[in-house]
Amino acid sequence: MSTHVVIMAGGVGSRFWPLSTPQFPKQFIDILGCGRSLIQLTVDRFQGLCPMSNFWVVTNENYVGTVHEQLPDIPEGHILAEPAARNTAPCIAWACRMIKEEDAQANIVVTPSDAVVMNTQEFQRVIKESLDFTASRQCIVTIGIKPNRPETGYGYVCMKGCDTDGVAPVLEFKEKPDLETAQEYLKAGNYLWNAGIFVWNVKTVLGALECYKPVLSEQIDTMVRTGNVKEIFPTCEKISIDFAVMEPASHDSLVYTHPADFGWSDLGNWSSLHEKLAHDAQGNGSVGNVSFYECDNCVVHASGLKRVVLQGLDGYIVSEKDGQLLVCRRSEEQRIREFSSAK
Amino acid sequence: MSTHVVIMAGGVGSRFWPLSTPQFPKQFIDILGCGRSLIQLTVDRFQGLCPMSNFWVVTNENYVGTVHEQLPDIPEGHILAEPAARNTAPCIAWACRMIKEEDAQANIVVTPSDAVVMNTQEFQRVIKESLDFTASRQCIVTIGIKPNRPETGYGYVCMKGCDTDGVAPVLEFKEKPDLETAQEYLKAGNYLWNAGIFVWNVKTVLGALECYKPVLSEQIDTMVRTGNVKEIFPTCEKISIDFAVMEPASHDSLVYTHPADFGWSDLGNWSSLHEKLAHDAQGNGSVGNVSFYECDNCVVHASGLKRVVLQGLDGYIVSEKDGQLLVCRRSEEQRIREFSSAK
Repeated sequence: MSTHVVIMAGGVGSRFWPLSTPQFPKQFIDILGCGRSLIQLTVDRFQGLCPMSNFWVVTNENYVGTVHEQLPDIPEGHILAEPAARNTAPCIAWACRMIKEEDAQANIVVTPSDAVVMNTQEFQRVIKESLDFTASRQCIVTIGIKPNRPETGYGYVCMKGCDTDGVAPVLEFKEKPDLETAQEYLKAGNYLWNAGIFVWNVKTVLGALECYKPVLSEQIDTMVRTGNVKEIFPTCEKISIDFAVMEPASHDSLVYTHPADFGWSDLGNWSSLHEKLAHDAQGNGSVGNVSFYECDNCVVHASGLKRVVLQGLDGYIVSEKDGQLLVCRRSEEQRIREFSSAK
Repeated sequence: MSTHVVIMAGGVGSRFWPLSTPQFPKQFIDILGCGRSLIQLTVDRFQGLCPMSNFWVVTNENYVGTVHEQLPDIPEGHILAEPAARNTAPCIAWACRMIKEEDAQANIVVTPSDAVVMNTQEFQRVIKESLDFTASRQCIVTIGIKPNRPETGYGYVCMKGCDTDGVAPVLEFKEKPDLETAQEYLKAGNYLWNAGIFVWNVKTVLGALECYKPVLSEQIDTMVRTGNVKEIFPTCEKISIDFAVMEPASHDSLVYTHPADFGWSDLGNWSSLHEKLAHDAQGNGSVGNVSFYECDNCVVHASGLKRVVLQGLDGYIVSEKDGQLLVCRRSEEQRIREFSSAK
């Protein structure tokens, strides 16, 4: 039984504009200033778990060239080009159905391409344990991140019991909570963040799709047999794997979680990037050649500029890429999409 | 008697960093975003007063190429390359001594290269009247800008009487005053800003130099006769034309002023640039493709960027050139030199 890794890289996020753009989204950016893009870091953290020939990337057809450039060792036939964005269920169904062609016994990890993990060693330990678990069982393991704050920006996994050491059954999935609920979750101890990292064997995932989404399952099967991606994929139901499979499977007691604490962040916004960057004594985090004078709690990404001098800014985002510059208050970051479409 | 124009372009100002740098100082920048650099605008405003073959530029040897690029119609032999910065007296002495070789009767205007004039028609009227005045008289006319505020950043010319319509005798020159003194000057009505624009005929200026600065006069004469600029120019006294000639000449009643009101600014700092730019309703002035959200009284020069979005900035300077970016409070602009040398 071989291990395969499926990287979902279809995101077109605009929350980091102008750093990320629809032409060059977050997963392809060296957002931490470490010399590797998020998708490269994603591949890096799986090194040793399986050979490069077992990696798969599902992405929009516009990004195939970028994926190939950034990850030249992934076989070209393993870069699956979506002609349209259909959310995660069709994406995962396609990749897993393709994997079945290569290894009908494969054990699979599915992961987003735009999150960061600080402790790779612990990450590998958790993934290996989860793979061991699914190798011999007809079940789904979702990695559950132990929360350290009442975060309202993530979905939660509610597990049975509070033993966070190994794999445990999932009772149910919870959508993004309000603050009060998030505080209760944190206190309760058996609620984990849903990181969107799933471990299962190929039979389990294809069986679950056939059971809970028979039409989609049939479409993907036909698509892979005929090779007619262009026409069939865009007609697939636009639905997340959480709604399509995880929720119904959890009601059937098929879902488990591996609680984990490996410094995960989805880097979903500037605050989470700020948190991951090294700070000066005034709480300024930056990527690029940046000098701060009388600045506090700023987060700056300007690696495309030779030199940046900032003075007198308290709590600002400064972001530059390819000749586009944004300076805005961190409190206004939810308006970045609005700013990005300014005339 | 022909008219010659001498443009002093040796400035290495760093007050507009990173817009201006020692490699590319202010006079060569399109700081107003009008498509012409300050030195080009300086030449433009003299058009019609004399042929291009009567223009002279004195600049540091490092800038000769830039001058030639920006002002291709000025004869190459009229671009005088200073091997070292010696302030304005040696610069003017050299240019005027060169002009004497071409026309021993020449009438001369000397001007800085980095100021702006909004009303060119009025500027030409004032210059013509001053040239008429010096054509037949052994005297110096300095253009005196009628002040509209108690400015402490300029030197002043004190004229005899308050008739600001035509040429009037200068009693004395005053250095940059404190605010109280500047307020008195404004009230008195016979104090004008010294714009550093001088009109005189070649005999007057060379005679005055011989009289007040005989060593410098002799050095420049030898330099022009032998062509040995490299060795002689750097040994000349480093002194301004104000100290070398204007002050002593004013004591000898040789200096006159033409009061003027043609929208002059020396663009000596960001505030004076802000004043000259068009503003939006919130007082933001910009050069470049800039969108403002909740910004007030900002001054932005970022014509090298494709697009700039600023949010929540009150009273800031934003300046970009060649991959260097500065964001600082307008109140801190006197520290820009410090910022520019940040590691």
